[in-house]
Amino acid sequence: MAADPLITLTTDFGLSDAYVGAMKGVIATMCPAARVVDLTHDVEPQNVLTGAFLLETAWRYFPAGTVHVAVVDPGVGTARRRLAISADGHNFVGPDNGVLSAALADETRGTRAPGEVYERRTVRLPNSVTAVSIDNEVLMRPSLSATFEGRDVFAPAAAYLAGGGAIGELGPVVDAVEALPAFRAVATLAGIEGRILHVDRFGNLITDIRAADLPDAPVFRAGGRTIEGISHTYESSNGIAAIVGSSGFVELAQSRGQASQVLGLGQGDRVRVI
Amino acid sequence: MAADPLITLTTDFGLSDAYVGAMKGVIATMCPAARVVDLTHDVEPQNVLTGAFLLETAWRYFPAGTVHVAVVDPGVGTARRRLAISADGHNFVGPDNGVLSAALADETRGTRAPGEVYERRTVRLPNSVTAVSIDNEVLMRPSLSATFEGRDVFAPAAAYLAGGGAIGELGPVVDAVEALPAFRAVATLAGIEGRILHVDRFGNLITDIRAADLPDAPVFRAGGRTIEGISHTYESSNGIAAIVGSSGFVELAQSRGQASQVLGLGQGDRVRVI
Amino acid sequence: MAADPLITLTTDFGLSDAYVGAMKGVIATMCPAARVVDLTHDVEPQNVLTGAFLLETAWRYFPAGTVHVAVVDPGVGTARRRLAISADGHNFVGPDNGVLSAALADETRGTRAPGEVYERRTVRLPNSVTAVSIDNEVLMRPSLSATFEGRDVFAPAAAYLAGGGAIGELGPVVDAVEALPAFRAVATLAGIEGRILHVDRFGNLITDIRAADLPDAPVFRAGGRTIEGISHTYESSNGIAAIVGSSGFVELAQSRGQASQVLGLGQGDRVRVI
Repeated sequence: MAADPLITLTTDFGLSDAYVGAMKGVIATMCPAARVVDLTHDVEPQNVLTGAFLLETAWRYFPAGTVHVAVVDPGVGTARRRLAISADGHNFVGPDNGVLSAALADETRGTRAPGEVYERRTVRLPNSVTAVSIDNEVLMRPSLSATFEGRDVFAPAAAYLAGGGAIGELGPVVDAVEALPAFRAVATLAGIEGRILHVDRFGNLITDIRAADLPDAPVFRAGGRTIEGISHTYESSNGIAAIVGSSGFVELAQSRGQASQVLGLGQGDRVRVI
Repeated sequence: MAADPLITLTTDFGLSDAYVGAMKGVIATMCPAARVVDLTHDVEPQNVLTGAFLLETAWRYFPAGTVHVAVVDPGVGTARRRLAISADGHNFVGPDNGVLSAALADETRGTRAPGEVYERRTVRLPNSVTAVSIDNEVLMRPSLSATFEGRDVFAPAAAYLAGGGAIGELGPVVDAVEALPAFRAVATLAGIEGRILHVDRFGNLITDIRAADLPDAPVFRAGGRTIEGISHTYESSNGIAAIVGSSGFVELAQSRGQASQVLGLGQGDRVRVI
Repeated sequence: MAADPLITLTTDFGLSDAYVGAMKGVIATMCPAARVVDLTHDVEPQNVLTGAFLLETAWRYFPAGTVHVAVVDPGVGTARRRLAISADGHNFVGPDNGVLSAALADETRGTRAPGEVYERRTVRLPNSVTAVSIDNEVLMRPSLSATFEGRDVFAPAAAYLAGGGAIGELGPVVDAVEALPAFRAVATLAGIEGRILHVDRFGNLITDIRAADLPDAPVFRAGGRTIEGISHTYESSNGIAAIVGSSGFVELAQSRGQASQVLGLGQGDRVRVI
């Protein structure tokens, strides 16, 4: 028996309204076999970087064929495009504002400039990636709301793809999309300039510094503090420790505390390696 | 292959306890094929109006045959009835306190009076709606808790209906139930008197003013401010804007801000159209 | 048709990151038929007692064969063991720190001492319980993170068991594990000494005093107040009331209020019966 198709959801809709529930109703109506998995709905409202980062940390754990919907969309109802992207055997659905960056390889996304905090740019797609602009109104809900395309455009598109529909039916192929630079710290004359991508529930500061890019015996500078070397577990740290987190990025963590509070740092702030 | 039966849950139980999990365990035990979808569990404790409103905004997106459970129940364990309602091809299960109002047509629920903020009343049911009082203890969990009928009464009733059980087996038919008035602003000599039904995660103020009831070139008065006309997207607004939201109700919204904070308004407060 | 296998999740990972989503991706990849039910992810970070208590209140409502994963794990990445336990027809997976105490019978867990607030101890397992130390790296994710064993060790083990795998393949049998004492107040010369196990969303103080252990006409002392007798519903109370909650424990509750705030009490605080 073939496995049921999977759809993941990443939004800033929260769980205190019924917005997510309505999306799931649309999916259940259009593709009853689909199983829906919430990645998170607690992205800070309109924080595209957080949405893109969280999707990047999770999507590869799902089987090929999964449809990943990400809706963090300050421009809902405006002229920005709606995208469906097929890449690496997975499908991605959401607004064309960078929130689907995780669908694209680092080389496609390019690198950020020193001093830059992840601003989106237009990137050309390689041949291995297919992207379309979701324009086919036949595959949307009949009465479109200008303010809830998650329910009326993106959920139907995801259900269509999960049910085995061809991506080309959703709309015309596009050859360039909006994307955030690859999540990767940049080398400067003064050492590696990292940025905090995300503060997690435990107050851990997840940077864009990759373990693979670290020198031997790295020394970190953040929030006026110096942290020497890499620790191997959260428990091993006294005070602030640098740890290679579960997605391969360096995290600053405080055992049984919140590094974000101790250091007074948050998303976008700088962490250096010297 | 027939689709798996669907059950939606709307409660004020929150997600930090295991109450919802226990309900899902009861459902999985009694009806293993049922798929459960959370609408929300973050209804403000005992706020029946919020529960009824959120259910109304979501249930129609689910396929016919879905069972919608709503438990916001200040009177748990007291003599108030437990209802199962069959209406419009869907089933509804919950306490008889108005939280299931969405199951009923506007004409059945009637209109609120000017000045009134959604107080429940007893309404007679039309022939098209079947409602029963859940009294059959054979279809409840064997050892009933007085404080958790969600787990011991409503989850079993929902599982029973999802599994194809006949509503009439749950208990005797009733011909009147408690309901909130239809969510619809009222006409007064001074114009339309609307009320705020819900403040959503984005701070949008969702009123009971329906787009279909608006005059040409409406002017809104709320919190001492005047808002002219209807905007078409959240982004188009400078300051507070009136928008037709995703459920057809007028919302007051602040682009990249919280209208609820800017205006100092919340559930039940008045919004006028002049 | 056999029912789909069930896996429940209880963690302190929260819902604002994608940690839980990644675990579900691993499960969906390894055991596509498994249905995952969240008990809660809002356990206070690293609060093992809360995790153990919430699992205890919910797991028996699931059908036999369910796999219950609980990850509240201050020692992640350290030398503490990872357990899979088979007991009472259910399976339990998590760190060996007491969070899986609910798998064990009261007699196995023993009683707490007067004055003690649920400190873990090593207990010997009876013949009816099988426990193994999850050591078999073939059944883990290929590249292990030191900080996210939920994704890399526990989710794979749960998926393996849900798919019908033999517990003995996960690692060697162990004959003793860490456990919290049975959740049961202790008798003292001055009466029953209870402790607050959990404060729920409604501010109800759930104690370890069992209804079955109460004398006739009990009088409770908590936070400087005296509460006489047992009430039967939340609504019946004026001021603070003692109620037998949905898991058989005495709760202190305030009708339409938060008993935790009124009494100024929280987890671990004392409640006496005299």
